[in-house]
Amino acid sequence: MNTILSDNYSVYFDNSLDELVDFIKKGNYSKFFILTDENTGEHCLPLLTSKLTGFNNYDLIEISSGEESKTIDFCVGVWKMLIDFGADRKSLMINLGGGVITDMGGFAASTYKRGIDFVQVPTTLLSQVDASVGGKTGIDVDGIKNIIGTFTMPKAVFIAHEFLQSLPPRQILSGLAEMLKHGLIVDSGYWNKLKNSDLKNPSVELVHRSVEIKNEITIEDPHEKGIRKALNFGHTIGHAVETYSLLHDKDSLSHGEAVAIGMICESYLAHKKTGLPSEELHEIVMVLTDLYPKYTIKEASFDELLLNMKKDKKNVGDEINCTLLTHIGEFSIDNVCTADELCESLRYYINL
Amino acid sequence: MNTILSDNYSVYFDNSLDELVDFIKKGNYSKFFILTDENTGEHCLPLLTSKLTGFNNYDLIEISSGEESKTIDFCVGVWKMLIDFGADRKSLMINLGGGVITDMGGFAASTYKRGIDFVQVPTTLLSQVDASVGGKTGIDVDGIKNIIGTFTMPKAVFIAHEFLQSLPPRQILSGLAEMLKHGLIVDSGYWNKLKNSDLKNPSVELVHRSVEIKNEITIEDPHEKGIRKALNFGHTIGHAVETYSLLHDKDSLSHGEAVAIGMICESYLAHKKTGLPSEELHEIVMVLTDLYPKYTIKEASFDELLLNMKKDKKNVGDEINCTLLTHIGEFSIDNVCTADELCESLRYYINL
Ligand SMILES: NC(=O)c1ccc[n+]([C@@H]2O[C@H](COP(=O)([O-])OP(=O)(O)OC[C@H]3O[C@@H](n4cnc5c(N)ncnc54)[C@H](O)[C@@H]3O)[C@@H](O)[C@H]2O)c1
Ligand SMILES: NC(=O)c1ccc[n+]([C@@H]2O[C@H](COP(=O)([O-])OP(=O)(O)OC[C@H]3O[C@@H](n4cnc5c(N)ncnc54)[C@H](O)[C@@H]3O)[C@@H](O)[C@H]2O)c1
Ligand SMILES: [Zn+2]
Ligand SMILES: [Zn+2]
Repeated sequence: MNTILSDNYSVYFDNSLDELVDFIKKGNYSKFFILTDENTGEHCLPLLTSKLTGFNNYDLIEISSGEESKTIDFCVGVWKMLIDFGADRKSLMINLGGGVITDMGGFAASTYKRGIDFVQVPTTLLSQVDASVGGKTGIDVDGIKNIIGTFTMPKAVFIAHEFLQSLPPRQILSGLAEMLKHGLIVDSGYWNKLKNSDLKNPSVELVHRSVEIKNEITIEDPHEKGIRKALNFGHTIGHAVETYSLLHDKDSLSHGEAVAIGMICESYLAHKKTGLPSEELHEIVMVLTDLYPKYTIKEASFDELLLNMKKDKKNVGDEINCTLLTHIGEFSIDNVCTADELCESLRYYINL
Repeated sequence: MNTILSDNYSVYFDNSLDELVDFIKKGNYSKFFILTDENTGEHCLPLLTSKLTGFNNYDLIEISSGEESKTIDFCVGVWKMLIDFGADRKSLMINLGGGVITDMGGFAASTYKRGIDFVQVPTTLLSQVDASVGGKTGIDVDGIKNIIGTFTMPKAVFIAHEFLQSLPPRQILSGLAEMLKHGLIVDSGYWNKLKNSDLKNPSVELVHRSVEIKNEITIEDPHEKGIRKALNFGHTIGHAVETYSLLHDKDSLSHGEAVAIGMICESYLAHKKTGLPSEELHEIVMVLTDLYPKYTIKEASFDELLLNMKKDKKNVGDEINCTLLTHIGEFSIDNVCTADELCESLRYYINL
């Protein structure tokens, strides 16, 4: 697979992790640190450490898995470990894990001593196709996702398709939602290819194309002033549902499951507001309802969901903005949606 | 006083704060927030709010004064206030206070929603001549100063000399140390002018020249790779003493008091290592000991002081690096100093 060039860094596709080892050698780092959670510590770390014989200037930092760890408390824990291990400005942080690890490790590194180098080794499908490029780092505060963070580019990204082998099916589905989104917003050919593949086991070629799409969009608009908003398709409602579920459900929705719901609702809004043809709406709904389990949303939760949307980083003032589709493969940004419209789209989902 | 142009932003000298009000108007911000501590809330805020009649889209955030507030806990408090007040990406943060407020407010703003606009209104001499330019934001963790932070430029800086009127004499002395440093590292003419002025009451012209010097240096080297290290003169030892005092003394040293000690020790090292003539060493020591009270350092504290120096952001690996002088007005960076040399310089100070 071709290396993808991003904003001053490269995304390598490499099951062996040899490119990463090369990168560490060339970087002449005083020390390096590998951040994992218990799952990536078990399933992914052994491959990496097996390549690190001969290095004795690194330490491991493990945090517990899950979105609950993406908080300032855990981040302070990481900072303190870096202090205790004597990390200096010529240190490197290697974030080996899903989006929680890459987001929070990226934030911790981008603020430690006002910024040390870090690389991303995403190990979930979601983090490979989404969190790997774009330079967003972040943590949650008060349950509000990514409310705190920076825009900081990693020095490199290493994608080992191999790591997906140990990933539970539900996590594959979570990443898949973003891949489907990539097709829906800019590439109907890719959408068609996805529809017709074995989606429980997405090939490295499909992963590669998703990274390419996300990369092209974020390079063109690094600070989310314009076309990057395309990536928000499904996310205005999706994030609100995700936040809701995180607070209320014992077994809460994954990001992708929430975004799948968001894409259904926002496709409905697109049909109503930006002319998405009804055949295309139905095609989208069919593919998504086929892949993702139905989630129960009650009218009584609408107020909280709307409040979540208002608190979303993306919104300015009291308006709620959505990225919608005009066709499969074509998007339209900055569509102001009223509370009534948003509720109607939630009802559409409920009644499917 | 001329406006100073920095890295994409301006430093205005303006007692009326009219320029700030103009800036707010032009910026079309959805909301703005004024961060103060109880002292700047009492002495500086009234002037600002008196100019804000007609605005109703702002809120006040007050934290308690002192370095003890420059922690992640207070920063989380500020983030939560921003969330509660509904700050969005088009919000502006106005940091009205000394270096604690401008550093932590800058950090909070530069990470809130991955960065919102902020302006600095420094109200102490130290923050006017030092924290006002250079783009460093930061907080302390585990008593280690500025260990966490970002490099983020404010959108503008507004210096009202007027604010220094209410500043306690000890705070004037604290800022003065940086002004003397500016002369010592690059401008012997300015050093001579300072020596012969009423230093309890530095004129706005002197303040202006210090900002100019700091600005020129930081613009040339925004990320501290080379000549910006000039500004570290007095700070390797100064920071260590400051951290020590913060932990052990009830009435701890101000930054400037600590830096004055650092400049004496490091001038001694300069005399030993980089050829600072002994007359110049004595001139520096005379001016500084005349202005600053003697601080008691014991041999028994040396180990802790050395450890502080090692933990300093500026150092890579186990080496301790100092910026020294070759002459008054000329500096030399990256001088590795041994533990013995550093202790010897501390003894020189003790025996003055
Ligand atoms: N920065 C960005 O642009 C961006 C984009 C999308 C999502 N995100 C963030 O990413 C997070 C979600 O990502 P995620 O789903 O990868 O989260 P995650 O890191 O929580 O990973 C999901 C689960 O899979 C486990 N896991 C990871 N790799 C594994 C492997 N190879 N084998 C077995 N188990 C493995 C993890 O331990 C965890 O339990 C969210 O916090 C979201 O905000 C960020
Ligand atoms: N970012 C940078 O480049 C930079 C440079 C130098 C120092 N700093 C930081 O600045 C901090 C020290 O600065 P500082 O001494 O200004 O700290 P400070 O903010 O603690 O101010 C000192 C005291 O003066 C009070 N005060 C402020 N303005 C006043 C006024 N006009 N009248 C009366 N009282 C007033 C404050 O309430 C406080 O009690 C340190 O944390 C240091 O790390 C940062
Ligand atoms: Zn997403
Ligand atoms: Zn200083």
